[in-house]
Amino acid sequence: MLHRTIHDTHRHYAWDHAIPPVATAAPGDTVTLICRDAWDGVITPESGPEILRTDMSGRVNPVTGPVYVEGAEPGDTLVVTMESYRPSGWGWTANIPGFGLLTEDFPEPALQHWHYDLTGGTPLMFGTTAHIPLAPFTGTIGVAPAAPGQHHIIPPRRTGGNMDVRDMVEGSVLYLPVEVDGALLSIGDTHAAQGDGEVCGTAIETPIEVTVRLDLEKGNASTYPRIIRPHAETAPPGPVDVTMGIGPDLHQAARDAVRGMIDLLAARHGLAPVDAYMLCSVAGGLRISQIVDAPNWTVSFHMPRGIFAD
Amino acid sequence: MLHRTIHDTHRHYAWDHAIPPVATAAPGDTVTLICRDAWDGVITPESGPEILRTDMSGRVNPVTGPVYVEGAEPGDTLVVTMESYRPSGWGWTANIPGFGLLTEDFPEPALQHWHYDLTGGTPLMFGTTAHIPLAPFTGTIGVAPAAPGQHHIIPPRRTGGNMDVRDMVEGSVLYLPVEVDGALLSIGDTHAAQGDGEVCGTAIETPIEVTVRLDLEKGNASTYPRIIRPHAETAPPGPVDVTMGIGPDLHQAARDAVRGMIDLLAARHGLAPVDAYMLCSVAGGLRISQIVDAPNWTVSFHMPRGIFAD
Repeated sequence: MLHRTIHDTHRHYAWDHAIPPVATAAPGDTVTLICRDAWDGVITPESGPEILRTDMSGRVNPVTGPVYVEGAEPGDTLVVTMESYRPSGWGWTANIPGFGLLTEDFPEPALQHWHYDLTGGTPLMFGTTAHIPLAPFTGTIGVAPAAPGQHHIIPPRRTGGNMDVRDMVEGSVLYLPVEVDGALLSIGDTHAAQGDGEVCGTAIETPIEVTVRLDLEKGNASTYPRIIRPHAETAPPGPVDVTMGIGPDLHQAARDAVRGMIDLLAARHGLAPVDAYMLCSVAGGLRISQIVDAPNWTVSFHMPRGIFAD
Repeated sequence: MLHRTIHDTHRHYAWDHAIPPVATAAPGDTVTLICRDAWDGVITPESGPEILRTDMSGRVNPVTGPVYVEGAEPGDTLVVTMESYRPSGWGWTANIPGFGLLTEDFPEPALQHWHYDLTGGTPLMFGTTAHIPLAPFTGTIGVAPAAPGQHHIIPPRRTGGNMDVRDMVEGSVLYLPVEVDGALLSIGDTHAAQGDGEVCGTAIETPIEVTVRLDLEKGNASTYPRIIRPHAETAPPGPVDVTMGIGPDLHQAARDAVRGMIDLLAARHGLAPVDAYMLCSVAGGLRISQIVDAPNWTVSFHMPRGIFAD
């Protein structure tokens, strides 16, 4: 069993099976991938919100890789165990104009920096208002699609990619359908914490060194990726606020539920609405309570009071 | 402070502010509403699945009430504290042809009976395969809409109704926007447990005696209802399986995520697919992992392994 380290000089900005692999691994090997943040290092701890007007065309959401897995063929399943995360101690959350669930409500850039304890012993502080437990994961993890050419890095797809599933915690196992020889795994967009929905468009974006073990199941490819997370999350203590959106369009209902929570948090904690929005993105949870009572569905947005200082 | 009990003889099958109130309460009063199950008592512990072909037009989802709350006016907020639930010990879950998230996959009726310990000390058994913690709540709770005439009972709306939000647990506080004088509160469709999504269309449907305290906030009506639940849920121990759907339509992604889980559970536990579907409805969780990586969203479906016997 070999161990390799892949540096972030080996990064790419689109899915394309023509990108040559930077390393080869056999099933059972472990690989450490050094991942940049989703803005490719452009944002620094000294940056102000005006940095968010940078034209990032072709540079956003870099992924480190690809890794060629010996023996992987189309129709197989690549099994990726998230062995360990080594976060960097600094991260950022932003409202990027034109990106996010409520772009029309929040046209101006906003940037929040986070400096955090690497051990997770101290939660991440949002000013003096809230503290967020460290819960690192890989926002983007995927293999190369069979279809030729460059595929945009932002939307996820059957072969994974920018899924932004917060359940990809340390110890999780990810099952990815393989579409090309060698699978061609890449990882990036690492997060220190994120809520379900990632509603403002960003999580706590942070560079992380990700160590994974690679295994292969011959055949057995599923329609979409799936995960086994090692245990359910421990929720912060105390009551939970739940806002709702109700209607025939799930997307609009999600907007309404999140808007309800922003109004609630802004009023209760004296937060600027954009700060409440970013807090929803890193610590709230977007759920579909029912999807059967036609024609109106219920989307709910959950925020634990236990993260607030007062 | 008065306490009243409203029997299930006082039930109605549509929202209509012309329905005369059956009781009057002042802010601070408590009321016990005796609620029938969603099929109005037609299904009994002896029923087989053929009962599900009964024409329930005009009889489905009865609600007990309405209660007139003194001083409530349009624009106010009715504050309903879920003081206590007294469940009945028997319930049912069904796949009703033509109803549910995956109607085309499951055209045949299926019916599961549950006999359960009223104290919640013993979980509810799904055959010998799985055990579901007792988690009672009111699927339908709402006030009369301002718009005149009869409004169908199945879809929820701004004034609440059939929201099917599983967070309405004992001790929760519900904030409902009032649209008519007296608010006209009614409650029904009580559940012993339900997952987020209620994907097969039914929960563990069970009669419950619901005791609520009624309070009033003058003005302050929100766009949609909201809830404070007293504490987050304690998740069953052990790993969590997470399946996904990825694509530009949240509804289709939800279907794909649930289909992935049904396949997984059916294969692992030797379950009939329709039984896996019903288990997903009572114990799984439908979440929106990200709604920002346009054009493809990630919907995830969560099932704790801790509910399974093996």
